[in-house]
Amino acid sequence: ESEPESFRTYPLPPRSRPDNNVLAEDLKTPDHHVARDPRLIRLTGTHPFNVEAPLSELFDEGFITTKDLHYVRNHGAVPLVEDSETMDWEFTIEGMIETPIRMTLAQLINEYEQVTYPVTLVCAGNRRKEQNIVRKTKGFSWGAAGLSTALWTGVVIGDLIKAAGPKRGAKYVCFEGADKLPNGYYGTCVKMNWAMDPNRGIMVAHRMNGEPLPPDHGKPLRVIVPGQIGGRSVKWLKRIIVTAAPSDNWYHIYDNRVLPTMITPEMSANMPDAWKDERYAIYDLNTNSATCYPAHDERLALAGNIQTYRVRGYAYAGGGKRVTRVEVTLDKGKSWILANISYPEDEYRLAPEGEELFGGRLDMSWREACFCWCFWYLDIPLSQLQAADDILVRAMDESMMVQPRDMYWSVLGMMNNPWFRVVIHKEGHSLRFEHPAQPALIPGGWMERVKKNGGNLSNGYWGEKVSGEEEIP
Amino acid sequence: ESEPESFRTYPLPPRSRPDNNVLAEDLKTPDHHVARDPRLIRLTGTHPFNVEAPLSELFDEGFITTKDLHYVRNHGAVPLVEDSETMDWEFTIEGMIETPIRMTLAQLINEYEQVTYPVTLVCAGNRRKEQNIVRKTKGFSWGAAGLSTALWTGVVIGDLIKAAGPKRGAKYVCFEGADKLPNGYYGTCVKMNWAMDPNRGIMVAHRMNGEPLPPDHGKPLRVIVPGQIGGRSVKWLKRIIVTAAPSDNWYHIYDNRVLPTMITPEMSANMPDAWKDERYAIYDLNTNSATCYPAHDERLALAGNIQTYRVRGYAYAGGGKRVTRVEVTLDKGKSWILANISYPEDEYRLAPEGEELFGGRLDMSWREACFCWCFWYLDIPLSQLQAADDILVRAMDESMMVQPRDMYWSVLGMMNNPWFRVVIHKEGHSLRFEHPAQPALIPGGWMERVKKNGGNLSNGYWGEKVSGEEEIP
Repeated sequence: ESEPESFRTYPLPPRSRPDNNVLAEDLKTPDHHVARDPRLIRLTGTHPFNVEAPLSELFDEGFITTKDLHYVRNHGAVPLVEDSETMDWEFTIEGMIETPIRMTLAQLINEYEQVTYPVTLVCAGNRRKEQNIVRKTKGFSWGAAGLSTALWTGVVIGDLIKAAGPKRGAKYVCFEGADKLPNGYYGTCVKMNWAMDPNRGIMVAHRMNGEPLPPDHGKPLRVIVPGQIGGRSVKWLKRIIVTAAPSDNWYHIYDNRVLPTMITPEMSANMPDAWKDERYAIYDLNTNSATCYPAHDERLALAGNIQTYRVRGYAYAGGGKRVTRVEVTLDKGKSWILANISYPEDEYRLAPEGEELFGGRLDMSWREACFCWCFWYLDIPLSQLQAADDILVRAMDESMMVQPRDMYWSVLGMMNNPWFRVVIHKEGHSLRFEHPAQPALIPGGWMERVKKNGGNLSNGYWGEKVSGEEEIP
Repeated sequence: ESEPESFRTYPLPPRSRPDNNVLAEDLKTPDHHVARDPRLIRLTGTHPFNVEAPLSELFDEGFITTKDLHYVRNHGAVPLVEDSETMDWEFTIEGMIETPIRMTLAQLINEYEQVTYPVTLVCAGNRRKEQNIVRKTKGFSWGAAGLSTALWTGVVIGDLIKAAGPKRGAKYVCFEGADKLPNGYYGTCVKMNWAMDPNRGIMVAHRMNGEPLPPDHGKPLRVIVPGQIGGRSVKWLKRIIVTAAPSDNWYHIYDNRVLPTMITPEMSANMPDAWKDERYAIYDLNTNSATCYPAHDERLALAGNIQTYRVRGYAYAGGGKRVTRVEVTLDKGKSWILANISYPEDEYRLAPEGEELFGGRLDMSWREACFCWCFWYLDIPLSQLQAADDILVRAMDESMMVQPRDMYWSVLGMMNNPWFRVVIHKEGHSLRFEHPAQPALIPGGWMERVKKNGGNLSNGYWGEKVSGEEEIP
């Protein structure tokens, strides 16, 4: 009754490049052992390795991203783990549990049920460059490609916690990696409730797109927390610690927070209580979307035979929520047009009973939660594009929250999700499109341009004079 | 070790008025058997009974609302159930289950564990009057008091579903009440995943604030779905039906939906597919807030000894999420001030082990979810109030979604949650405050006034000329 192995009705990963080598620029860094794809855009100089793909190339790969183009957020050097050592990799489950556990990766694979499913990871800094242009934050400049989707294989974390037996009063599950940093090993936590909730799908993973984890993605073992910011998915996992209080790891407290908007970087230096206020820690992703085509600087000839242009992009929501609508405006929000949405993640839900993929059970038929990005498109008549100044897009999630018009600026510049705006320039017989910003130090984009021209990016109208209207000071 | 019965460290209900009678206006309606509080504001004429309390009186009652002032949403006549019949009230669990169940309320009370906890119910139409002023929707005009909090006692629904044994493929739990309406009995559904999730806290309840349910609140048995719109909490419960598909009840399809904003009432009459699109059904509440003090038309003398005014209001989020910050602006969003938040719900989490309340176990220590409203306040120097044109408030939830500046208008006018704006008028040596709107057909509020004066309420600046700035057409 089940389909033959070769007949899959859901997306499989596109082929990775077989020939990635260690790049010349990495040879002088502690990461001289890590092969990488030269197309990735480095956001923090040469080292540590923090990268996103060019937005168009990421989008062109489709639903699943190869390891080549998957974004990377490394706080420091990548731990060196030889292939021959991976199965002996040890990690512990400790803290407020009945049975402390020390286990190798080989045991994890042999003694626990393996599962496989797709998860979109998103860096909390996705789209931060836009915030940095409004006002410099303490974070580096992600463009809109700080997200990627892969098929992860591993063990549902609830199975491990149950085996260890949490004690009464245990409320958090902390993770610690092997990456030693200036303020200690990288670590953070999630709530015990989430770890034990099958709908949350938190996993300890050892395969990515069917292959052992690449060094940049946690070789040989990492956490995957669907629906939450990437910073909770600890790589090079060494310790799982069950606790009564949130993690006291330096990186849990001073990273991945959205402080209230009125707190400036200068003020924040003297506000330990604000940093430690768990209300400002970010877990679930907020709802977001971006336009991928037209790409930045794309030109569209108006004299051809084509009468419409297909605008395309991505959207996602956090905490397992579904994006229920994506809307586009060509008149700055006075009226909206409903875009079409496709959810490739739903195709996995239709897999036959007993499906196996990459050594793990693929069973998503019972799960309502959405862990992945979706795609949207809208065919727009060229006459309308020609008449418009810009294309803005916003997504709404199933909790009826919609992306805001206004940016919520904060010290760390995280969770930036206002309407994504692409400006349309008329140039002779063609249109030229301009995204808000380009990643890293790459110049370009309407935000930089508007700011240079003295526009106030916080005026609720993207700092632009609206034709026929007076500028809002 | 447990505290004496009389020593409760969490809020108990304020005293209800003992002397509510059947009101003269109800005598000629099918509800001639229902005692009610005359302070409630009727939103749909005399009958059916749809009411909210005056906002200040609701707020003054504090965290728990009495049955007297609790909002009511009735689609038709209240079923008549004599006190002597309540324990014999029968309901069923049927559909895709192994063991069909028919049970009386007496059995429910005697054979299952009883629990008690506070839940804020919110009508999906809360704040709809504001939408109706922008453009008439198909719904009647709730003010900002379409929400109330009570202590509910009953049985966690997962216990009942487990007893019935759901079959493979069961995905929804439908509810049907005894209120017969033009299009059949009122009914709707929730997802099976939610019904089985203890963190969601869905309950079949038979007591409200320690007393048997009043007729307007489902006497003798109702569903309580925390964190979701009130329309899912079916009253006068007769049937629980486990299904593979969402409810096909007329009220599930043509009520409690947020269609895309570009669909007008006229268009919607011919769009059955849009109505049936489950993406537009609303379950979790969206994040919302309102200012209660200053009240509408409140006057504040500037010549007294008082140097500051305490602005106060409520906020809530859906799906168990916490409100993590509330911010106030006195300059239309250019800068924000952090308000103080109190979460009385947290006081119940500290109750001693084994606590019993109103015949149910009160055990919230393990639960992270927030099912109730919270309160916010901010002390503002009078000099700042005097210098400002308005007070705007917005809340943000733990998924980092913030209330939007822009209204999301839709055909049914539900889930209205833009920044709540109170206008400040300088009148001699005092300030007069003006809320956006008043419930039902009660005149007053800046929205009506601005609209009458030709202002465009959708201009992103509340239709007002901003002093020193040109009007946005």
